[in-house]
Amino acid sequence: MADEKKVYLDYNATTPLEPEVIGAITSSLTEEWGNPSSSHDAGVKAKKVIDEARCNVANMIGAKSSDIIFTSGGTEGNNMIIQTAVKYAYHDMSNGYPGGDNRDKLPHFITSNLEHDSVKLVLEHLAEEGTASVTFVPASSKTGQVDVDDVLSAIRPSTCMITVMLANNETGVIQPIKLISEKLRQINQSRKSLPKILLHTDAAQAIGKIEVDVEDLGVDYLTVVGHKFYGPRIGAIYVRNLGDKDVPLYPMLYGGGQERNYRPGTENTVMIAGLGKAAELVVKNIICYKNHLSSVRDYLEIKLQEAFKDRIHLNGKFATSERLPNTCNVSILSDKLQGHKVLSNCRILQASIGAACHSQNRPSPILLAIGVPESVARNALRLSVGRETTKDDIDCVIQDLIQAVNQLENHITET
Amino acid sequence: MADEKKVYLDYNATTPLEPEVIGAITSSLTEEWGNPSSSHDAGVKAKKVIDEARCNVANMIGAKSSDIIFTSGGTEGNNMIIQTAVKYAYHDMSNGYPGGDNRDKLPHFITSNLEHDSVKLVLEHLAEEGTASVTFVPASSKTGQVDVDDVLSAIRPSTCMITVMLANNETGVIQPIKLISEKLRQINQSRKSLPKILLHTDAAQAIGKIEVDVEDLGVDYLTVVGHKFYGPRIGAIYVRNLGDKDVPLYPMLYGGGQERNYRPGTENTVMIAGLGKAAELVVKNIICYKNHLSSVRDYLEIKLQEAFKDRIHLNGKFATSERLPNTCNVSILSDKLQGHKVLSNCRILQASIGAACHSQNRPSPILLAIGVPESVARNALRLSVGRETTKDDIDCVIQDLIQAVNQLENHITET
Repeated sequence: MADEKKVYLDYNATTPLEPEVIGAITSSLTEEWGNPSSSHDAGVKAKKVIDEARCNVANMIGAKSSDIIFTSGGTEGNNMIIQTAVKYAYHDMSNGYPGGDNRDKLPHFITSNLEHDSVKLVLEHLAEEGTASVTFVPASSKTGQVDVDDVLSAIRPSTCMITVMLANNETGVIQPIKLISEKLRQINQSRKSLPKILLHTDAAQAIGKIEVDVEDLGVDYLTVVGHKFYGPRIGAIYVRNLGDKDVPLYPMLYGGGQERNYRPGTENTVMIAGLGKAAELVVKNIICYKNHLSSVRDYLEIKLQEAFKDRIHLNGKFATSERLPNTCNVSILSDKLQGHKVLSNCRILQASIGAACHSQNRPSPILLAIGVPESVARNALRLSVGRETTKDDIDCVIQDLIQAVNQLENHITET
Repeated sequence: MADEKKVYLDYNATTPLEPEVIGAITSSLTEEWGNPSSSHDAGVKAKKVIDEARCNVANMIGAKSSDIIFTSGGTEGNNMIIQTAVKYAYHDMSNGYPGGDNRDKLPHFITSNLEHDSVKLVLEHLAEEGTASVTFVPASSKTGQVDVDDVLSAIRPSTCMITVMLANNETGVIQPIKLISEKLRQINQSRKSLPKILLHTDAAQAIGKIEVDVEDLGVDYLTVVGHKFYGPRIGAIYVRNLGDKDVPLYPMLYGGGQERNYRPGTENTVMIAGLGKAAELVVKNIICYKNHLSSVRDYLEIKLQEAFKDRIHLNGKFATSERLPNTCNVSILSDKLQGHKVLSNCRILQASIGAACHSQNRPSPILLAIGVPESVARNALRLSVGRETTKDDIDCVIQDLIQAVNQLENHITET
């Protein structure tokens, strides 16, 4: 079989880099290789690039550039923010809280059961080693979201942080962060003898697909991940009024003082230049991106329904919840059409059955968490479209899926 | 004044990227952007690049590729290795050791007073927060090295790790790691009821300038920093027989399982590709690099002595200690010639007065540590040559230094 055209519909796993981002990185590789801490020309030039990128990243999320710290990626960002909350809590509560019971001897986190492993596993680890206690609020099977009241009713005297992702990576369902922050503000005002509960959102999947604004969301911390919005494999974190003690940030690493000592290590200037350019493109084009993504994704869902009729089950599509405009999580119902089998019989489509970090062939815990029956979840395909996906691509994918399904159901072998 | 040619002699702060490294990165930016955890073609292609790079990095230091973990840089690597030793020690010694006194309630580290901040400040932080105790062994003013016997006589029952850099970043003096490891092996054999003392070396400055081989050195851990050997701003760590419990590694981050769960986070494929290429070049050319660097550095020192006669003081040049072939730490004696003043009066030379992370104008703590008098240390210039530095460049630098010194001593103003 000759090399066939491939259609990549796995943009939630990672995106290619925009040509302008490649340009920024490539030029930086030769032009800005100096050590940003050096005071001579080579260093000054590199520092300037970093300052500009910081402005662009800040601008993308409606933040001040002084509230942005570059990290090696989303995993580091999420770990650092959660570890900060632990240190913040231990700073105040070594003897438990007034009104608290035994559980209140430990810093308490509230999160959803939809989080990425870089939040979920950090919290599970803290709970296992006895450093923190964690409430995993189950998402609703009616909305694919955590319920705001469920989140808030989990608050205890020892609660130090609520961390909920902005949009789920498998279903695309957007979580009610703004509502949580509005109600949390009132709660924080009324618990004056207790430390403020900090609010974090991992915006990895949302940025570049929908508008993200830290003021609108009202969060204290937000995680930015370059390679989900056509940027490089680094990230950044937003910390509200970084430097004020109200929203603290504790370093995980110690070293040469870079990033105001919050994140030492010689700056990855070229990747930072790329991240800045990717952010600049988002600022400029977010409306176009959104419109394009939703028109192609909606076309995909229409065509899937035309091809497979009532055997199509759209996982994570709820009347009352907003979804990312690019994500379609779909099962083709049948006991022969497990997601991994369908994908391995596709010739053109490159996609996944869930988060890239989980390559096992088990049904997605995220889908089970939002009430998708196991037999349906096993068949799930996560199809996520990108800026360059066309309706022609979608037509090819539909034909490819039809042939894969035929093969699996009729055992047709290739001739 | 028109733009004059600049001569960069700050290769110990950072190096430019080799054209082949830029080529590897550039091609990876467009070709291998897939998520290495994805099972489709885009992912498989990216994973292959990472595997190849891991082999090249391993090969460069005489290690097995399964003993290499990629990190965001040297700072992360050093922090991770030191934090590992703390966890390793706490695992065994919560009640102190037999034969130990009060000090032995805490894991004990031995290090030198010459270390980079990414070792020094981590250890100081652990000591401050009461997590570990640390002995900073002073370097000898006769050799610029830590004395092997001083290091070993600092061992206590609770000692969990010895961490000493392979070559100092300011003086270039190579530390006696191999001797320490040979004697430590005997000590470890004789303290059978106590946990093995782990040995780490930060090889940031040595790699690419001298041969570095983990078997020859006999270390358990070694830190690799790409941007010091014409590679990108990421790093790697070597862990002897990674996975065996003899030399443990504990993750600092939790997340998607990458790097065998030791260092999760979507892999920075393009930077890893660049690191692999930089390592491959070192393997191929290390003899040439060494010869070139030492011939240019020696020429520089001869010319400095010709120009400034007995006013030249070479800091860190000791009869019995080996130095990196590229490093010249020099003071021009006079009460008007503080290093930062000389550099700011240079028109061509781009260099530093010490580690890039310290841009203050105080005398280098490293030079003071090896017994350089304060008045001499204040005048220090760290001149570090690179693969592309020529003798012509050195001639220009000498002329530039002569004019800077004249200006400072005679207050000649530019016309």
